[in-house]
Amino acid sequence: MALKVVALAGGVGGARLSFGLSEMLPPEDLTVIVNTGDDFDHLGLRVCPDLDTVVYTLAGVANRRTGWGRERETWSFLETIGALGGPTWFRLGDRDVALHVHRTQRLRDGAPLSEVTRQVCHAMGIRCSVLPMTDDDVRTVVVTDRGEMPFQEYFVRRVCEPAVRGFRFDGIENSRPAPGVLDALLAADLVILCPSNPWVSIDPILAVPGVRSTAGSRTVVAVSPLVGGMAVKGPAAKMAAELSVQPTPQGIAAHYAGLLHGLVYDQADPDAGVALQEDGLRSLRTRTLMRSDRDRRRLAGEVVDFGTTVARVEAA
Amino acid sequence: MALKVVALAGGVGGARLSFGLSEMLPPEDLTVIVNTGDDFDHLGLRVCPDLDTVVYTLAGVANRRTGWGRERETWSFLETIGALGGPTWFRLGDRDVALHVHRTQRLRDGAPLSEVTRQVCHAMGIRCSVLPMTDDDVRTVVVTDRGEMPFQEYFVRRVCEPAVRGFRFDGIENSRPAPGVLDALLAADLVILCPSNPWVSIDPILAVPGVRSTAGSRTVVAVSPLVGGMAVKGPAAKMAAELSVQPTPQGIAAHYAGLLHGLVYDQADPDAGVALQEDGLRSLRTRTLMRSDRDRRRLAGEVVDFGTTVARVEAA
Repeated sequence: MALKVVALAGGVGGARLSFGLSEMLPPEDLTVIVNTGDDFDHLGLRVCPDLDTVVYTLAGVANRRTGWGRERETWSFLETIGALGGPTWFRLGDRDVALHVHRTQRLRDGAPLSEVTRQVCHAMGIRCSVLPMTDDDVRTVVVTDRGEMPFQEYFVRRVCEPAVRGFRFDGIENSRPAPGVLDALLAADLVILCPSNPWVSIDPILAVPGVRSTAGSRTVVAVSPLVGGMAVKGPAAKMAAELSVQPTPQGIAAHYAGLLHGLVYDQADPDAGVALQEDGLRSLRTRTLMRSDRDRRRLAGEVVDFGTTVARVEAA
Repeated sequence: MALKVVALAGGVGGARLSFGLSEMLPPEDLTVIVNTGDDFDHLGLRVCPDLDTVVYTLAGVANRRTGWGRERETWSFLETIGALGGPTWFRLGDRDVALHVHRTQRLRDGAPLSEVTRQVCHAMGIRCSVLPMTDDDVRTVVVTDRGEMPFQEYFVRRVCEPAVRGFRFDGIENSRPAPGVLDALLAADLVILCPSNPWVSIDPILAVPGVRSTAGSRTVVAVSPLVGGMAVKGPAAKMAAELSVQPTPQGIAAHYAGLLHGLVYDQADPDAGVALQEDGLRSLRTRTLMRSDRDRRRLAGEVVDFGTTVARVEAA
C-alpha cells in the first residue's frame, strides 16, 4: 500500500530527515513543506535559508560540515562584496548566490515562490515535492531581552546571543498556504514534524492559516530536535531554557500538545515512554542523530514504521 | 600649469587610454565620461559593460586577455546559473557579479548611477573622476538587416553578425548629463575622444543633451580606434564598411566633423596629414596600439602633448 507522507521541515535536521524519506518513498508519495519565516532580503536578493538547505540536501549538494550552503563552494563574490564595502556577515557563496539571483529575478517577474521552487527542484534533479509553507511574505521576528529583531539578525549576526522572550510571525494572519500544501496534508497518511526548531521552524508552518487544523486531521508524529537535552544544531536548547520549557521529550511533546499522536526521541534522553503514554502519546526511543546518509535512511525508515503503527492504532 | 583633461570613453580602448592618462595626470585634473548606452539588465542585475571595463582597468584588475571582466576571476556563479536553466550567454564572473549585485541594490535604494560609481571607484582605489554620461536610462538599439536589437543582443549574443544600418539611443532626448559632466567639460583644457567605437561608444555620450555643444566649446582631439583599417577590438571596422564609411583617419575625422581640432591615428595607416590639414585638422601619426601599461602611458603622453599644441594653436 502506498503511504503518503508529508514532512514539515526547517533547516538542517528537517533537511536530513527529508533526505532519508526521499530515499525510501516513491517521489509522488513525499511532500516536504518548508518554513519560510527565516526568508529575508539581503543585497537586494531573496534568500530562503530553510528552503535552500532542504533543496541542497535533497539534491545531494549541501555542505555537510557547515549545515548551510553548498559543497565545493567558492567565495569570490563575498570577497568582492567586502572589498566594495558591502556586508559580509551573511556568508553567500558563489554557487549559492546564483540561486538567490535566479529566484529574485523570477519573483520580480511575478512567479510565486512555490513555482520557482518547483522549477529549481526540477533543475536539480529532486523528484519529491518541496513546497514553501506560503507564497506570501511571512517574517519571523524574535522578541528578545534586547528588543525585537528579524530572525537572521538574531541568528546569524548576533549568533543567538540575546535571550529569547517569544516570537512573532509578521504577515502570518493574511498568508495563505502555498498551492499544494493543504492538498498534500489532506491526502497524507502520516504527517512528520521533523527534528527542526519547534519555535522558529515548525511553528511558523503550523501558524499559516489552515495548516495546523488540516495537519491535525491526520496522524501526526514529531521527531524531537533535542538529544540528551541539547540541540544538535542551532539554538533550540538555549531557547527552551529561556522560555522555561524542559529540554526533554515531554517538553517537546507538550509544545505540540493537541496535534501530536506520537513522538520519536533520542536514546540519549532518559526513557520517557510511560510519561508520554500517560499523555496519550506513543513514542519511539532511538538514535536520532543523522551523521551519515545511512543514519538518515535508517531514521526515516524507523519514523515511517513508527508512524504507520501509530496511524493503525489511531484508525482502530 | 595644470592641464584639465576630459576623456570620453567606451570599453577597452577608452579604458586603456584612460589608464595611461590616470598615470600621468594628477587625479583632480582627469575626468573620464563613460558611455552607458550598452547598459542592460541581466538576471535582474544592472550590468554596465563600459563603465565596468573602465573601472576595472583604472583599478588594475581588468582581464587583459579578454578585454572584459576581471583578472583572477572564478566561474561558479555562471556554472550554477546554467545548471538552474538560466542564461549563460553573457559571461558573468563571480567577482564581476558582486559589483552588479552591489550596484543594483544601491540603484534600487534610490542612489543615482553616478553616486554608486563614485563609491565603487573610491572602494577600488581609483582617484580620478569616473562619470557615467547620464544617470538616466539610455539604451543603444542597433538597427540591422535582421531588425532592431538591444546592443548586448547584437554584440554578445549575435556576435556582431547582423549587418548594421544605423543606431538609436532610446531615452537620449530626455536624458540629462550626470552631475559633474558639463562642469568637467566646461573646465577642460582638452577633451579627448578615446579610441572607442565612434557609433556605439562615443556618439551616445555626445548625444546626451548639452554634451556635444559643451565639448565643442573646448579643444577636442580624437584617437582613431582603427589601425590600418582594422578595429583593434570590436566591430568598428565591420560597422564602418556596413555604413559605407571609409575605415581611414579621414573617415573617422569626417565622422566627428564640426567637433574635432585634431586626430591621432596609427602608424599602420597611410599618412593622412595633408588630407586632414586640408579639412583644418592637425594630426599625429603614431603607434596607437596599447598592449602594455607602458604603451598606455606613452600614448597618453603623446595625445596630451599633441592636444596641448592643438589647444595653443586654437587659442592663438
